[in-house]
Amino acid sequence: MPEDAEAIAAFGYELGLLKRVRRTGWWHAGVRDPESVAEHTMRTAQLAALIAAEEGADPARAAFLALWHDTQETRTGDLPHTAAAYLTKPDPRQITADQTNDLPERSRETVRAAVDEYEARQTLEAQCAKDADKLEMLLQAVEYRDTGIRRVEGWIDSARKDLKTETSRRIADAAVALSPLSWRER
Amino acid sequence: MPEDAEAIAAFGYELGLLKRVRRTGWWHAGVRDPESVAEHTMRTAQLAALIAAEEGADPARAAFLALWHDTQETRTGDLPHTAAAYLTKPDPRQITADQTNDLPERSRETVRAAVDEYEARQTLEAQCAKDADKLEMLLQAVEYRDTGIRRVEGWIDSARKDLKTETSRRIADAAVALSPLSWRER
Amino acid sequence: MPEDAEAIAAFGYELGLLKRVRRTGWWHAGVRDPESVAEHTMRTAQLAALIAAEEGADPARAAFLALWHDTQETRTGDLPHTAAAYLTKPDPRQITADQTNDLPERSRETVRAAVDEYEARQTLEAQCAKDADKLEMLLQAVEYRDTGIRRVEGWIDSARKDLKTETSRRIADAAVALSPLSWRER
Amino acid sequence: MPEDAEAIAAFGYELGLLKRVRRTGWWHAGVRDPESVAEHTMRTAQLAALIAAEEGADPARAAFLALWHDTQETRTGDLPHTAAAYLTKPDPRQITADQTNDLPERSRETVRAAVDEYEARQTLEAQCAKDADKLEMLLQAVEYRDTGIRRVEGWIDSARKDLKTETSRRIADAAVALSPLSWRER
Amino acid sequence: MPEDAEAIAAFGYELGLLKRVRRTGWWHAGVRDPESVAEHTMRTAQLAALIAAEEGADPARAAFLALWHDTQETRTGDLPHTAAAYLTKPDPRQITADQTNDLPERSRETVRAAVDEYEARQTLEAQCAKDADKLEMLLQAVEYRDTGIRRVEGWIDSARKDLKTETSRRIADAAVALSPLSWRER
Amino acid sequence: MPEDAEAIAAFGYELGLLKRVRRTGWWHAGVRDPESVAEHTMRTAQLAALIAAEEGADPARAAFLALWHDTQETRTGDLPHTAAAYLTKPDPRQITADQTNDLPERSRETVRAAVDEYEARQTLEAQCAKDADKLEMLLQAVEYRDTGIRRVEGWIDSARKDLKTETSRRIADAAVALSPLSWRER
Repeated sequence: MPEDAEAIAAFGYELGLLKRVRRTGWWHAGVRDPESVAEHTMRTAQLAALIAAEEGADPARAAFLALWHDTQETRTGDLPHTAAAYLTKPDPRQITADQTNDLPERSRETVRAAVDEYEARQTLEAQCAKDADKLEMLLQAVEYRDTGIRRVEGWIDSARKDLKTETSRRIADAAVALSPLSWRER
Repeated sequence: MPEDAEAIAAFGYELGLLKRVRRTGWWHAGVRDPESVAEHTMRTAQLAALIAAEEGADPARAAFLALWHDTQETRTGDLPHTAAAYLTKPDPRQITADQTNDLPERSRETVRAAVDEYEARQTLEAQCAKDADKLEMLLQAVEYRDTGIRRVEGWIDSARKDLKTETSRRIADAAVALSPLSWRER
Repeated sequence: MPEDAEAIAAFGYELGLLKRVRRTGWWHAGVRDPESVAEHTMRTAQLAALIAAEEGADPARAAFLALWHDTQETRTGDLPHTAAAYLTKPDPRQITADQTNDLPERSRETVRAAVDEYEARQTLEAQCAKDADKLEMLLQAVEYRDTGIRRVEGWIDSARKDLKTETSRRIADAAVALSPLSWRER
Repeated sequence: MPEDAEAIAAFGYELGLLKRVRRTGWWHAGVRDPESVAEHTMRTAQLAALIAAEEGADPARAAFLALWHDTQETRTGDLPHTAAAYLTKPDPRQITADQTNDLPERSRETVRAAVDEYEARQTLEAQCAKDADKLEMLLQAVEYRDTGIRRVEGWIDSARKDLKTETSRRIADAAVALSPLSWRER
Repeated sequence: MPEDAEAIAAFGYELGLLKRVRRTGWWHAGVRDPESVAEHTMRTAQLAALIAAEEGADPARAAFLALWHDTQETRTGDLPHTAAAYLTKPDPRQITADQTNDLPERSRETVRAAVDEYEARQTLEAQCAKDADKLEMLLQAVEYRDTGIRRVEGWIDSARKDLKTETSRRIADAAVALSPLSWRER
Repeated sequence: MPEDAEAIAAFGYELGLLKRVRRTGWWHAGVRDPESVAEHTMRTAQLAALIAAEEGADPARAAFLALWHDTQETRTGDLPHTAAAYLTKPDPRQITADQTNDLPERSRETVRAAVDEYEARQTLEAQCAKDADKLEMLLQAVEYRDTGIRRVEGWIDSARKDLKTETSRRIADAAVALSPLSWRER
């Protein structure tokens, strides 16, 4: 039906906003033009798959949960940590419900189920996705450090201490010791 | 093993390059600072899931194939269409093989299988991912048109005529007629 | 006392963040790199002075109120309109209280009094500052329209209908009809 | 009268140019995308208020003088220090006279009086505003240093030696020793 | 001699500044991130060669004059047209003299002779270079128009009326009628 | 003839693309917004002239060869070093032949002769232009290092070992030891 296609197209445009929404935490560290939520999301999903593969979880499912984990930020922006003292973080499920309201049923249920599973943090795939979210930030922190940004330790430490899977902890240890250019020498 | 974690971390840094590699085709259309391959990839994966849901394919699998479809561009950059007359496009499977060579087996096979399936274009999920790649470009073209870029018809037309699934064709038709801001009024 | 100077310096660094925080509403309109809160603030303060001069209010006071009107966004970011459905906008006075807590008394009371007066909207100067906030957005919308951004009417209309002073309404009417380059021909 | 509103709107557009004019001195230090004159102006006005509060001067007046101190750069750009050997810096009062020529009287006199007072440097408020101009550059230099820019000492030293008020000298001493992120730990 | 090499290296760093100095006139037209003087210079030199080839002048010489025509802007920045009312444009030969003062004799005389010839505007090559300077701006104006910038007519007209060679006038006429993407269809 | 002017204009637009094509190698080093090919080209041509002057070659000719050395990248983009393992670098002469096909004879032969001479590397001017290409990258590497980029040694070393003329080797030695700001103190 045309309305279904229209609803998917409109949702596609909403998701496009994530290409422009910046990861605001880095403004605090002095980065004038930090990466977008979309850029963060791509690598989070890829890392989730790798962590899941090593942890014996379903890589495609873990990546899929990661793919939707920040999509609510089209409506709220990326709230920095300092905002926590002043407002109650909204429930991602409620925003997802609104975003997907007009979608045809299969699309709607697919997205909602992914957000539900991620937020519930009950499956190993959800945990891999959450760890990937943190690990992605850690890699980015090391990358910014390598371009001269001096105060990234707070970001590295905060990412590290939240990691739950053994695999992600090991990757984090390796990443902090590696150069972001190391892949060129392998 | 530490070497495994190191290999995953190094691969994570390589994937981070996709945040900086620009989608070069838009330079031709006059866009000075176009979106990154990472930004394109995120929405491609999301659209692949929605198309797959409507087509009765596996949404997570379609998204997963899309997630890796341009990862070879860390090594070659995003080759513009005009390059085709002067060089032979490399085989993505060969680059993926090199990129994943040091990864632990499960990670390695997970990524390679995804690239193989996508490139073979034999499954419905692969077709949904490929259509999502084109559809994402179409949405972006309309978005650029809405910011003043005048010559995007070539991009819109080329995207449209390559679409294979009925769902993606319908979304394309709807998208061209819609405002990128339409989601705010729903 | 050294601690006083240190507190002022630290507050100065916090205010510097406003050079990086982007005006997020424009991301919705498709602007990839919109102006910063600091840029918006400068012109808001200047317009507040001009409106106040014409309205018979104190121009320096009106400008001063405008100068602090978005300074709380160092902690919360610039919340887009679409966020209103999902979270309660924090009280600016509470954030200002926290931001100025360590300042020496005279600095602290100066800033707090300005924020209090602005938020209470009881004085003519506060009304001029508020109108300047809206008028600045309207001028910016026309400027973006002139660089090709197509969907700015929503911003122009929303700014216009909130204006309270006669002067700001007249400037708005003139601004919508003028070219942003008109000053070069005067 | 409509012409008055039109003149204010046109002046508003001229002031908007300060969002695009870059602080050119930083290009010398290697900064590719330095802050705008508008961004510099906002913090200068805020710092002027804080210095004035501590010095027993009128904070709103000091901020107001700072608010207009670089507005002439819409016409000349921000002339780097190296230009001084090759051209005579124009008189800001003459440019302000031209910029405000068509404004209604109250607006015109308000702006001219602010520029006159700032340039004459006879009042304590004018001195606080001038010190704020230098101090703002010093804070920015430390912030750039924290993002990796190596050669900022020249900017820090030049700012420091020009400071006249005791308060601004103390803030400068504190600022050089502080991290730009220190406000997050307070 | 080492001092000679050092002087050339230092001059090379000074010239690198032109990668960061923006063409300020476009800020007036609303372009937030306009091209650099270096970018303008490259195409000016290339166009100078093409014009010279058609005019029967020496293409390499014409390009060479163009290559140095804005190099003085490392010291003064790119002064916008509106600055002319407020300051006397410095003599490029004097700045070049200072810039090349420490260079070894052959390098020094090579650069100075090029600037002298360009500024004297007595040779056909100098005229081709000057026309190329204007024509480059015209092409850029059309390119910006194609990305949505609305008010470029002033730039196009001002470029056109200054052209002296028949070849450059013909190219200008053709350029205004062509799409910047036309080369892809040839 | 009008078609000749049209062909030159179309070629001018194609060359304008070099303002947008980024030097992709720096993305690997972590630079998010590296300089354009046009920016690189301007300084390469200038350095070629200085090297040639000292080597007793023709400065204008050396600069002219440099001016066209990367113009083929309008069609292929700037291929990073890592691409070499996956594709055969196209022959620049073939691309130039296509780019200049419609140009009037004198323009066409002028450009083709320059590319031929540069690629053949048989004249001293061609060698000076090639050395300038490498030296320009070396200066840029030092400049990026000065803005905080940590991993530029690979670029500096690779540039240095390819230099063939004595003059360029001396400039390289001097450049590595100098501050990019050194010209301000001379």
